Amino acid sequence: MDISSRKITVKEVGPRDGLQNESVFVPTADKIAWINQLSRTGVSYIEITSFVHPKWIPALSDAVEVAQGIERAPGVTYGALVPNARGLERALLANIDDAAVFMSASETHNQKNINKSIEDTFPILKETAQAALAAQKTVRGYISTVFGCPYEGNVKIDAVIRVAENLLEMGIQEISLGDTIGIAHPRQVQEVLEVLLKRFPAERLAMHFHNTYGMALANTLVSVEMGISTFDSAVGGLGGCPYAPGASGNMATEDLLYMLHGMGMTTGIESTKMLEAARFLQGKMGKKFSSHQMQIGE
Amino acid sequence: MDISSRKITVKEVGPRDGLQNESVFVPTADKIAWINQLSRTGVSYIEITSFVHPKWIPALSDAVEVAQGIERAPGVTYGALVPNARGLERALLANIDDAAVFMSASETHNQKNINKSIEDTFPILKETAQAALAAQKTVRGYISTVFGCPYEGNVKIDAVIRVAENLLEMGIQEISLGDTIGIAHPRQVQEVLEVLLKRFPAERLAMHFHNTYGMALANTLVSVEMGISTFDSAVGGLGGCPYAPGASGNMATEDLLYMLHGMGMTTGIESTKMLEAARFLQGKMGKKFSSHQMQIGE
Repeated sequence: MDISSRKITVKEVGPRDGLQNESVFVPTADKIAWINQLSRTGVSYIEITSFVHPKWIPALSDAVEVAQGIERAPGVTYGALVPNARGLERALLANIDDAAVFMSASETHNQKNINKSIEDTFPILKETAQAALAAQKTVRGYISTVFGCPYEGNVKIDAVIRVAENLLEMGIQEISLGDTIGIAHPRQVQEVLEVLLKRFPAERLAMHFHNTYGMALANTLVSVEMGISTFDSAVGGLGGCPYAPGASGNMATEDLLYMLHGMGMTTGIESTKMLEAARFLQGKMGKKFSSHQMQIGE
Repeated sequence: MDISSRKITVKEVGPRDGLQNESVFVPTADKIAWINQLSRTGVSYIEITSFVHPKWIPALSDAVEVAQGIERAPGVTYGALVPNARGLERALLANIDDAAVFMSASETHNQKNINKSIEDTFPILKETAQAALAAQKTVRGYISTVFGCPYEGNVKIDAVIRVAENLLEMGIQEISLGDTIGIAHPRQVQEVLEVLLKRFPAERLAMHFHNTYGMALANTLVSVEMGISTFDSAVGGLGGCPYAPGASGNMATEDLLYMLHGMGMTTGIESTKMLEAARFLQGKMGKKFSSHQMQIGE
């Protein structure tokens, strides 16, 4: 397949998935200034915060202030993580455009993360998704541990299919397949996508790679070759991995752009502006970002 | 192409290309202990040092001591960088198995690096290669700046072909195609290999990727898909880039192994032993290595 002229949607998840796992609390005003900068890069989607209870994610305890404080740029969809109907209420008050619900493909990770079985999570997400759709919002659904679980190891593809089918039946428009612990390698990505693409159209699927083992870009490459066109990434490679202290975080947006643009694909994003946004936040966080582009010439 | 059962040769170049660009001088005894550790990983080729004049590469001024001090493991080929016939003489006295000669595909880089034009470099390498072959040694030839030059920018594929043809005509058995400044992206690798593989058999070509822009593994993946089976890498991602201070160095051997082995390919190398060798040297250098595997759980 000639992929060189493909149009790729990059969803910037740094303000949520990036900051969520960082120990530094970024002041609200800095978050807002940073997100405003991201809005001017040409990116079409920014996940700006999480409406999970602040007790669980103190780094994002200012969700309402951030959502209400940012400037909304035309053409940009502002999403937020939403755990349930109560979280959605707060998110709607803060006027988010897209609600991202989440659950795991592995029972143990779902239990530890959400404190419920997979079966008991479905009705909660259904209620949330339907309320969001009723409020004229779009909904995306994260599936965690698609490629492996920190507790169970291997995750069966049937478990992924079951969760994905349930989410799509709820009216959720896009499924984001998460390599939560960043262990997938390109062959595994290929094998998983071969199965999933027989059941679900490529337009319904996004990939959410973490770079824990350094595989994120190679995994992205095979995903593009298989027809996937939407990828989540975080400026600077923010995020780390709660199960592997010291490890790399999300796929870095600027490294992803280097590869995609170099290969001739288009994203609508200006790389230099994305790098400026990375440098801005790096200065505020006082932490050296791990992305390759950020290390060049520093 | 199903690449999952392919046999890949990984050539460990850390002791030469890795250390050459590091500012820390690793004491000779530590280099020897480290190379001895590498010899026990199952790797089949180690580039142990350089016989370029120590004035140019002070980090490797102990070439003779290193080459004479290491234990030679059966099944391991010990190579060294050799600039000319005089360098080769020292290398032969130190009993290396394989002589690696080098030049650039771009005129300016060749001039700055070797202080000669490309045309004037050919007879020097020919003399060196023929002397090495006469001494029953194997010879490999590095071509630098295949994918771009820090001075000239784009490098024409015809320039690469011309150098490669000349090297192969000298009797050199393997050409290592160097992305010296680490700027290649997978599409470029694909395009360059499409041209080269029409002229040269895949068995004669190795890829030498640097990870400056984070592309090394994705580039490796497309190279394997195109039929290449030999890759140069350095433990820990050692090396940096003289043209981009602070940037990542060579493709990290342990990250490469994670991808290859995960995908089902075989290298003969035990990853855990390679990681032990990385940790040993990291301790000696007092520097945090940049590879992903080395950051996990640190």
